[in-house]
Amino acid sequence: MFIKNALQGAPATTTRFRELWDEIAPIGRDARTGGYLRYAFGEPERRLREWFRVQAERRGMPVTGDGNGNLFARWGDPDATGAVLTGSHFDSVPQGGAYDGPLGIVSAFLAVDELRAAGVAPDRPIVVGAFVEEEGARFGVPCLGSRLLTGALTPERAAGLRDADGVAFAEAFGDRPAGARPDLLAGFATFVELHVEQGRALVDRDAPVAVATAIWPHGRWRFDITGEPNHAGTTRMADRRDPMLTYAFTVLAANKEARLRGAHATVGRVNVEPNATNAVPSRVTGWLDARAAEEGTLAELVEAVRAKAVERARRDGTEVIVTEESATPLVGFDAGLGGRLATLLDAPTLPTAAGHDAGVLAGHLPTAMLFVRNPTGVSHSPAESATDADCAAGVTALARVLAELAARPAPVGRPGGATA
Amino acid sequence: MFIKNALQGAPATTTRFRELWDEIAPIGRDARTGGYLRYAFGEPERRLREWFRVQAERRGMPVTGDGNGNLFARWGDPDATGAVLTGSHFDSVPQGGAYDGPLGIVSAFLAVDELRAAGVAPDRPIVVGAFVEEEGARFGVPCLGSRLLTGALTPERAAGLRDADGVAFAEAFGDRPAGARPDLLAGFATFVELHVEQGRALVDRDAPVAVATAIWPHGRWRFDITGEPNHAGTTRMADRRDPMLTYAFTVLAANKEARLRGAHATVGRVNVEPNATNAVPSRVTGWLDARAAEEGTLAELVEAVRAKAVERARRDGTEVIVTEESATPLVGFDAGLGGRLATLLDAPTLPTAAGHDAGVLAGHLPTAMLFVRNPTGVSHSPAESATDADCAAGVTALARVLAELAARPAPVGRPGGATA
Repeated sequence: MFIKNALQGAPATTTRFRELWDEIAPIGRDARTGGYLRYAFGEPERRLREWFRVQAERRGMPVTGDGNGNLFARWGDPDATGAVLTGSHFDSVPQGGAYDGPLGIVSAFLAVDELRAAGVAPDRPIVVGAFVEEEGARFGVPCLGSRLLTGALTPERAAGLRDADGVAFAEAFGDRPAGARPDLLAGFATFVELHVEQGRALVDRDAPVAVATAIWPHGRWRFDITGEPNHAGTTRMADRRDPMLTYAFTVLAANKEARLRGAHATVGRVNVEPNATNAVPSRVTGWLDARAAEEGTLAELVEAVRAKAVERARRDGTEVIVTEESATPLVGFDAGLGGRLATLLDAPTLPTAAGHDAGVLAGHLPTAMLFVRNPTGVSHSPAESATDADCAAGVTALARVLAELAARPAPVGRPGGATA
Repeated sequence: MFIKNALQGAPATTTRFRELWDEIAPIGRDARTGGYLRYAFGEPERRLREWFRVQAERRGMPVTGDGNGNLFARWGDPDATGAVLTGSHFDSVPQGGAYDGPLGIVSAFLAVDELRAAGVAPDRPIVVGAFVEEEGARFGVPCLGSRLLTGALTPERAAGLRDADGVAFAEAFGDRPAGARPDLLAGFATFVELHVEQGRALVDRDAPVAVATAIWPHGRWRFDITGEPNHAGTTRMADRRDPMLTYAFTVLAANKEARLRGAHATVGRVNVEPNATNAVPSRVTGWLDARAAEEGTLAELVEAVRAKAVERARRDGTEVIVTEESATPLVGFDAGLGGRLATLLDAPTLPTAAGHDAGVLAGHLPTAMLFVRNPTGVSHSPAESATDADCAAGVTALARVLAELAARPAPVGRPGGATA
């Protein structure tokens, strides 16, 4: 086998990682905060897509689109099926970090380089993918690209989604999306997404890389709270029907109920009408993001928050309507595949509470994820980070995984990866 | 005396009120909500200013500006001093009501009509004023026009104020503001502002009109709460520094502390960064509007809310900075004048918790306010209302007040208003 120490990148890999990383680091970075503003089809994301094409061309990997905004660069027989797909996304949340998404694409190209440098000639094609609108930051639906590709979202619905400026997805993309591409999916045998960890489990375990076992069930619920707009100065406290009070109580209840259950709940987005200093609001809308290890726990948590909000609304004289905007059940990655990779890499296994394109594709083909250690655990923030050495370890681990999965048929004595 | 029943408008006055009111009712009204969007120098407010000029012209009252955006229409000797000023403002809060402001201007023109119909020839000039940006909804500083006129705000500071789209006050006005006009102020002997009541005290007292005694001390405090932006899905609850929690706690604390003191506190405006569903915010800014009958109570209230916010921030691992954006001390209207008008009208007296241009002018000339009953007490909302009959009673009361104040010298037997 060409890689001796599975979970440590060679110094040369570290150097190559830094060189390639520096090419994209300035793109879409807010100089004031260091945070990233890389939205689907926005100028920075378009530059990153162009960079993707250049990287593919340098490596002699033809690029095709899927008609939905996703890009695929292929190493190997254009007609062969059973390809191994790897990659991630370029887009960020507002003021997001550098690693969430791009690390999986940069690592994929570097893993191809490692395989080639080691003289590996894979039996199956290896495809590097870049998915569009994974964060849902521009059009509101996370994993939009992979949902279109797999048919989880219709092209009609996607075409009509609009960003905050009223621009439709179809307009930003420049075409009506193609929708489900079972023909393309049929050509892939496996998907492996490498991603920066978004918590500190790998810090606790003192390991640079892990294999993901599952994605927590999670979803978004909108709380529309209506009251009675009024003058902030003159309206007696007893005469008010103030939706901001119901909102505030709901935020604190979500926090408390999540802690009680070992789950996660966040209200990070709010909209107030009219949002004037001297007016009791007419309406406050809050979005609850909730996640838990078990679907039952998640349902219990959301119901508990809803019940607290309704109880408080009765006290405040306001009304609450709760709408489920999205809900994703537990995604268990292919257990056989995950176990095989964990053994291959001698790496720990972890669940994650974040949604990923891998979670969408897992319903269609055997899928795995690799996580790279994040020293602070901070993500969706300019402070998100990973050391160059850990990123190199991730590249090396991904190369080893691709070599394993792209070997067909598995040679005698292959399980265990002792020879290649 | 030409008015027999002081606090009841004649049916003809009710009819004339409705006719004039209907002329401006559609201007700046949001057809969807019935709320008003009349912002300083915006298109609806410009149409109302044009309407003001037409009304003045119909009555042969020359209009002059003060170089700050305020307009004055004059009945009487252009060179005489000791004029009686009345009027109010056209601008609204976002989705505001029809009456807050415009009622005072419409009533002023109708009071002039009543005086003329009754054959009153005032000894002093009567001036109808329209002040600009009373609500502060566009440029952030309430009573901007009267503050400029009196020198409470420098023209340099006003010129640089910007609206949400970045348009500067000077640009919207079309000129640099002139600032303090002591020459103009010296020509006024008294100011009387008629206004819709913004509470239900007149409902409780079963009276259509009241005389204001004072404006509660009030102000605006900005709470900037900073935490650590992070991934809403993956960050353990214990690892978070979430400013939304501190904000929510502060909102509930403000409500509780105000109720404990018989004061008013509102958080009706909030700004969240990045305001994304799947991100723990980096910063939440809330604006506290607080008012109380006594300055000491107000200071205690704001300090109590600040202390609670800081205490909670310690628990949340966030930081709070509190900035006073504006603070207005207790404004006591001229007690002699108020008492005289209450006697003249046989009307109750009331304090108010709302700021008004009358509060700014009260520091420069004897000032009084009349309130017209508001059946629901709702204000700064499309539901704000007053009956046509009460509005007519307001016109009649204002006419009586203007007749009283514009008589110079007071004729023999005049105090008490028994003859005219």
